[in-house]
Amino acid sequence: MSKPTISGFSAAHLPFGIFSTSARSPRVGVAYQDWIIDMTALAETGIFAFDTSVFYESTLNAFIALGKDVTIFARTQVQGFLSKEQDIPPAGNELFVDRKTARLHLPLAIGDYTDFYSSREHAENVGKLFRDPENALLPNWRHLPVGYHGRASSIVVSGTDIRRPKGQVKPNRYPTPRYEPTSRLDFELELAFVIGKDSQLGRPVPIVEAEDYIFGVALFNDWSARDIQKWEYVPLGPFLGKNFASSISPWITPLEALSEHRAPGPPQEPAPLEYLLTPNRYNLDIQLEVKLTTANGHGKILSRSNAKHLYWSMAQQLAHHTVNGCNMRVGDVLASGTISGPDEFSYGSLLELSKGGRSPINIAPGVDRTFLEDGDILTLSAWAGEGGGRIQLGEVVGTVLPAIL
Amino acid sequence: MSKPTISGFSAAHLPFGIFSTSARSPRVGVAYQDWIIDMTALAETGIFAFDTSVFYESTLNAFIALGKDVTIFARTQVQGFLSKEQDIPPAGNELFVDRKTARLHLPLAIGDYTDFYSSREHAENVGKLFRDPENALLPNWRHLPVGYHGRASSIVVSGTDIRRPKGQVKPNRYPTPRYEPTSRLDFELELAFVIGKDSQLGRPVPIVEAEDYIFGVALFNDWSARDIQKWEYVPLGPFLGKNFASSISPWITPLEALSEHRAPGPPQEPAPLEYLLTPNRYNLDIQLEVKLTTANGHGKILSRSNAKHLYWSMAQQLAHHTVNGCNMRVGDVLASGTISGPDEFSYGSLLELSKGGRSPINIAPGVDRTFLEDGDILTLSAWAGEGGGRIQLGEVVGTVLPAIL
Repeated sequence: MSKPTISGFSAAHLPFGIFSTSARSPRVGVAYQDWIIDMTALAETGIFAFDTSVFYESTLNAFIALGKDVTIFARTQVQGFLSKEQDIPPAGNELFVDRKTARLHLPLAIGDYTDFYSSREHAENVGKLFRDPENALLPNWRHLPVGYHGRASSIVVSGTDIRRPKGQVKPNRYPTPRYEPTSRLDFELELAFVIGKDSQLGRPVPIVEAEDYIFGVALFNDWSARDIQKWEYVPLGPFLGKNFASSISPWITPLEALSEHRAPGPPQEPAPLEYLLTPNRYNLDIQLEVKLTTANGHGKILSRSNAKHLYWSMAQQLAHHTVNGCNMRVGDVLASGTISGPDEFSYGSLLELSKGGRSPINIAPGVDRTFLEDGDILTLSAWAGEGGGRIQLGEVVGTVLPAIL
Repeated sequence: MSKPTISGFSAAHLPFGIFSTSARSPRVGVAYQDWIIDMTALAETGIFAFDTSVFYESTLNAFIALGKDVTIFARTQVQGFLSKEQDIPPAGNELFVDRKTARLHLPLAIGDYTDFYSSREHAENVGKLFRDPENALLPNWRHLPVGYHGRASSIVVSGTDIRRPKGQVKPNRYPTPRYEPTSRLDFELELAFVIGKDSQLGRPVPIVEAEDYIFGVALFNDWSARDIQKWEYVPLGPFLGKNFASSISPWITPLEALSEHRAPGPPQEPAPLEYLLTPNRYNLDIQLEVKLTTANGHGKILSRSNAKHLYWSMAQQLAHHTVNGCNMRVGDVLASGTISGPDEFSYGSLLELSKGGRSPINIAPGVDRTFLEDGDILTLSAWAGEGGGRIQLGEVVGTVLPAIL
C-alpha cells in the first residue's frame, strides 16, 4: 500500500456500496482510497469461501443477509488482499475502478425506515420552538427513545437533487391554510444504522444482542419542511413535512470499522427500565460537519457536532423498537434523529441554528440564510479518528431545486 | 354458473390473492364461489395475451405493476371464461382449488404503509378521550387528511395469530412508567387501498388521476395497544402502540368490482384547498362488521359501520400524500384509519365502544370486555350490495395470544 491514505477510505475502513460504470452494471463495491474494489472481480480470485453471487446484486441486502460471520470474513479477506499488493492499482487490473468514473446507487432495498429523536439538545431546542419553552422535554422523553416511522420510498442516495416540496402551511399571519412551496426548507444531520439480520415478529431483540443485528452505519440527511410539519404534525406526528426526501450516503460503514471509535454515552437520569439497560452502553465517537454552498459559490461550515452527544444509543433504539415484538428486516434503516450538541455551533438543523428563523446566519458578505434557498448545496461529512487511520463516512450531498410550478 | 353465489365471491367480484396447497407453491389465485382459480393453470389455456409469468410470483406486485389495462383485461377474461362453463368445477379440473384446502398468504410486498385518520367521528371520539373534550378535533383536521407512516414489516395476512405486545406504559396511577404487557389491546376497523402504479418522486399525483393509481381495496385491522400509545405518542405520533401487527385480508378486491357501490362523501366544510377538490368525490358504500368470539365460544357483533362515513376520500388521501412529491410504489398500502359511524354501535374500536375502558361491553351473561383478552378472536367482515351480486371482501381474522413472559 504505497499511497498515503488521505480519503479516510483506508484498509481499516472498507465501506460497502453499489456502483456502476459504463462497462459494469450495478454491483457490490468496496471503497478503498481513490478506487472502488469490484467485489465480483475480486471474488473471481477465489479468496471468498461463500456464495459470491450476492456481489452481482444491485443492493447490499443479499450480501448483508449472509450474516456477520460472512461479512466480517469478506472484510478480512479484502484487508489480507490489500496487504499483499505492492502497487495499487496494478496496471490494467479490473479489480480497481476509479471512484471518479463510477456512479453510486442507493445501496439498500429499505423495507422500513424509522427516525428517532435521540439527541436531548435537539429535542429541547425543538420543544422550545414548537411548543412550550418551559416544558421543552415531554414527560416520556427521558424514559424511552422517542421515534416514528418515516417513508422508505423517498430515501435517495447522496447526490440526488432535492425538489423543494409544496404543501399546506398555515403560519400565524394566514387566517386559513394555503398551498404553496415550503419557505422553511431545512436539513437534519443524522447518523443511521442498517439492520443486518432479520428478527422474528413477536420476539423482542434483547439489548445485549442488539449489535448482532446491526450491519453498519451511514450518514443521513432527513430533509424537512418546517412550515408543513408544524401545521400537520398534531396529533399523529410528522408526515409530508418529512417524506418528500431523505438522503443517505452511498457507503455503508461496517460496525467493525468503528470498534475503536467509541465514547461513553451521557449519563441517563432517571435510570431507564431494565430492557434498555446494558453494561456496555456506548456511543460512536464520530465527528460531524455541515457545509452550505450557495449557487454563487459562497461556502460556510454551518455546524460541527458529534454522534457521541446522543442520549439514546443505537442498541437502546433497537431494543426499544422491538420490545413490543415489532420485527426487523435486513436493510431496514434506523436513524438517530438530528444530532445537536451542547453549544450553538453544534446544532444539527437550520431550525435550531437560526432560532426558528429569527436569527439569520451570515454565509458571506450580504448573503444570509434562515432556511435553505433554491440552488443551495448542503453537504454532510463525518469522520472518526485522525491521521492515517481516520475513518471518513461517505458524505451526503444534495442540491435544492426550485418547486414545480 | 350453476351454483348460487352465497360467498360474495361471485363473477362480479373476482378478488386477487396468493395461495398455496400441498401440491402447489404460492402463486396468484382468484377467489370464485368456494374455489380459488389457479391463474397459472388458467393462463395455460391461452386466454391471456400478456406475460403470464407474473402469476407464478409469490406476491401480486408484478401482476399489478403490469397496469390497469392488463389487470382489467385479466379480470374480463376470467369473467368470460366463467360465463362459458356449465359445471364448476369441471370434474378433475386443476383450474379450481377448493378454498378450504388452500393456504392464503400475504398477497403483497408492501413497500410503505400509511395510516390515515379520515373518520371524523373517530377523530372526535379519540380526541375527547386522549386530549380535550372541548377541542376534540384539532385545527388542521378539516383542512387535510391527517396521516402518518406505519410499519410495513409487521403487516400479516388474516388468520395470523396476534401476540399481545409488551411495552412501556404509564397510567396515572403509576408514579413512573413500567414495562408490562398491554392491558388495553384494541382493534381498529379500517379499509385499505393498494397502489397499482408507481409515481415519480417530486411529482404530485393530481386528484383527478388518483384512481389510475389505485389497484384495489382490502379490509384492514390496525391492532393497537392504547396504553403504550398514550404514553409514547407525543410529539411524533403512534409507534410501538401500533407497529407490533396489522392484519390485512388475503383477497384484494379490484376497484372495478366496486364501481356500482359508491356513495357521496359527507359535506366538507370549509371547502378543501384546490388540490383536494374533485368534481366526482365519492366514497365506497361498503358495510362493515366487527365480531368478537371469546375463547369459550361466546360471540357478539361489536360494531356495524360503513366506509361511506369517511370524511376524506381515497382520492383525497392519495392526492394529499403525494402533493409534496412523495412517491408511491406498486403494493404500497394506504389505510383509512378507524371507520366509526355516527352512532355508538358504529364505532370502529374498543377504545370508543367502551368509552376509554369505562363502559364494559356485555358479550354474554357474566362475560364483559373493555379491551381484548387472550384467546379472543376478532373478525372483521365487509360487503357491498345484497343478494346474488353482493361483493364480500376477504375477511380479517386474528386470535390474541398471551404475551411472552
